[in-house]
Amino acid sequence: MPQRAPARPGMSMDDVDTPALIVDLDAFERNLEQMARLARRAGVRLRPHAKTHKSPIIGLKQMALGAVGLCCQKVSEAEVLVHGGVTDVLVSNEVIGARKLDRLAALARQATIMVVADSEVGIDQLAAAAQRADVRLRVLVEINVGADRCGVAPGTDAVRIAMKIAGAPTLEFAGVQAYYGTAQHFRTADARRTAIAGAVQSTRLTVQMLSDAGLGCDVVCGAGTGTFELEAASGVYTEIQPGSYCFMDADYARNRADDGSPVSTFEHALFVHSTVMSAPVAERAILDAGHKAVAIDSGMPDVVGLSGAVYERPSDEHGTLNLVDCEMRPRLGDKVLLIPGHCDPTVNLHDWYVGVRGLNVNRVQGAKSYGAGGYSARASVESVWPVAARGALF
Amino acid sequence: MPQRAPARPGMSMDDVDTPALIVDLDAFERNLEQMARLARRAGVRLRPHAKTHKSPIIGLKQMALGAVGLCCQKVSEAEVLVHGGVTDVLVSNEVIGARKLDRLAALARQATIMVVADSEVGIDQLAAAAQRADVRLRVLVEINVGADRCGVAPGTDAVRIAMKIAGAPTLEFAGVQAYYGTAQHFRTADARRTAIAGAVQSTRLTVQMLSDAGLGCDVVCGAGTGTFELEAASGVYTEIQPGSYCFMDADYARNRADDGSPVSTFEHALFVHSTVMSAPVAERAILDAGHKAVAIDSGMPDVVGLSGAVYERPSDEHGTLNLVDCEMRPRLGDKVLLIPGHCDPTVNLHDWYVGVRGLNVNRVQGAKSYGAGGYSARASVESVWPVAARGALF
Repeated sequence: MPQRAPARPGMSMDDVDTPALIVDLDAFERNLEQMARLARRAGVRLRPHAKTHKSPIIGLKQMALGAVGLCCQKVSEAEVLVHGGVTDVLVSNEVIGARKLDRLAALARQATIMVVADSEVGIDQLAAAAQRADVRLRVLVEINVGADRCGVAPGTDAVRIAMKIAGAPTLEFAGVQAYYGTAQHFRTADARRTAIAGAVQSTRLTVQMLSDAGLGCDVVCGAGTGTFELEAASGVYTEIQPGSYCFMDADYARNRADDGSPVSTFEHALFVHSTVMSAPVAERAILDAGHKAVAIDSGMPDVVGLSGAVYERPSDEHGTLNLVDCEMRPRLGDKVLLIPGHCDPTVNLHDWYVGVRGLNVNRVQGAKSYGAGGYSARASVESVWPVAARGALF
Repeated sequence: MPQRAPARPGMSMDDVDTPALIVDLDAFERNLEQMARLARRAGVRLRPHAKTHKSPIIGLKQMALGAVGLCCQKVSEAEVLVHGGVTDVLVSNEVIGARKLDRLAALARQATIMVVADSEVGIDQLAAAAQRADVRLRVLVEINVGADRCGVAPGTDAVRIAMKIAGAPTLEFAGVQAYYGTAQHFRTADARRTAIAGAVQSTRLTVQMLSDAGLGCDVVCGAGTGTFELEAASGVYTEIQPGSYCFMDADYARNRADDGSPVSTFEHALFVHSTVMSAPVAERAILDAGHKAVAIDSGMPDVVGLSGAVYERPSDEHGTLNLVDCEMRPRLGDKVLLIPGHCDPTVNLHDWYVGVRGLNVNRVQGAKSYGAGGYSARASVESVWPVAARGALF
């Protein structure tokens, strides 16, 4: 059930109740603008992934900057997006089962809907649902280009599936999805380049074979925040679907360029705000943010503004700050900002985004006019948005 | 925002949409009865922890079987419990900050409220909030008995904090909380016995020193599902506060008795129901349940009914079943039940409990009248309860 919001517009950042999900609106807006610019420059369409933010408000901001539509993973996410005013949605995931498919087909009367498929059974189910709803669904064949998750093999198998789609009267073959998720997190530039070169080769081959079979691809899509520049430059992909760039988590920030420097020019724009709720000994502070406030599947959160402080040993409602190597130790009641290791599942824990203007985080400890939290003393709440598709699981 | 429920009462288990949080009502009721019996036999009060289930409906069932009240970790959880009819709540956690404390004090007009403290600053804040609300708050001093999280040192420090509580006109000193969380998960009986023996010794010493200082302890509490029989038999603890026993997760089931056998007699009663949404090759099935449906902080979920199948490589919305060693491989569209590694953060991902009667899970593959999901073909939905305090973070 949705909980009350931890803040209201106009409030000072210090008064926001904790734990809370903070969006640095300045950094967030720069991230949106940068991705729109990069996609435009590369000549590819941008279809940001809403599984990261689960918010039609944020999605509409992305579309206002030129995105052609949004991606999501679940029918229930698509429902929230369409009901929030988004007019073009790709469910970038296989949908199995008549109950889900009837909901998907119903959405196709309200917005442009695409979905992916990787099996003949799945296509039969899609076609039947479209027929029941009297709609035509646009369908992409998903190919496995290295992630070894969903998707048929590139080449012959993909052509067989595509022919099946094209042959269904209630479906329209729209192209290929080729997403290599794990490659987003390969740390070296070389590993990412090699992985995506392989994905591009498989995709190019498949598109050519489809063309030989008389099937043109309106859409060739894939790519995420860690590799999108490679897919965008490939000449094969027509659409990229990055999600995390709007917030940037600590994990993506660990990717490196050829010279070993951080590769990403996107800024951290999402934080979990927390409070020191216990400080029983000098070397340890206990924060009020644990597993239920910040996801740790891609590593522990980084700590803003307290150099030497290490977040460790999270339990459900607590995180321990190890302060052994921290010079300016926070005191009981001090606020501490955390950069989540993984934004997507962290966002999914919260009911509200607290949008803050002038947050201006500073990771240098003790900088002038900064408190323990590492943010500007003038930071204030501008907006409180629902995480509208939080918990949209099916 | 709360999503629509994945089921309605009367529905067959096969028709429940996925992913969904399933309660095996038969096993769950046996777990509640067993813990009530064990506490009664040991002569200790039972105050189950609601951080596991976040549900006043479940809490009231526990109280109907003799529990004296409930524990929770957050003021917002206490609000949900009290608004749901629970009359006695211990916030078993430090509460810092005037906004939270004013809400806590307001609750003390509607129900019996206790809270723990481990600092003089915290006690000053508690006393001030109680004064503003014109209530008296019952307060326990929390001592650190090994977990090295919150809590003052046993002995002298604890007496100093207790005296501070007793000296505040708006507070009432009620006793000691001594909870050793990490010991719950020590795998050998010997390690758990040694850890809790130390906790009992520290607690006994502290209670004696408090008594010498003229402070009697009405409540001496702590203990969780992994060790409660030790604390209950100590003669020092008056209240135990286990949470997980109602559902039992895969992690607790890994605890062993002296002879190496599984120690717990509680049954798995919580499952995540999932569907095979892609099966591109014979050795791999992709489930529709990933990080956003099942928590992995205490290890991967176990798989019901498909011996040899291993859940691995979860991503946000997908889990991969490695089927290399699985004889009866599930097919596209088959349902698969997962036993979460850790119940508490898994429950916190879902808006609804789907209570099923006659689930009768069978972990033996291919048992008569069982489908791929490993549950009885006659299983049907009896109740759909909200996870009312899901997301209650502050």
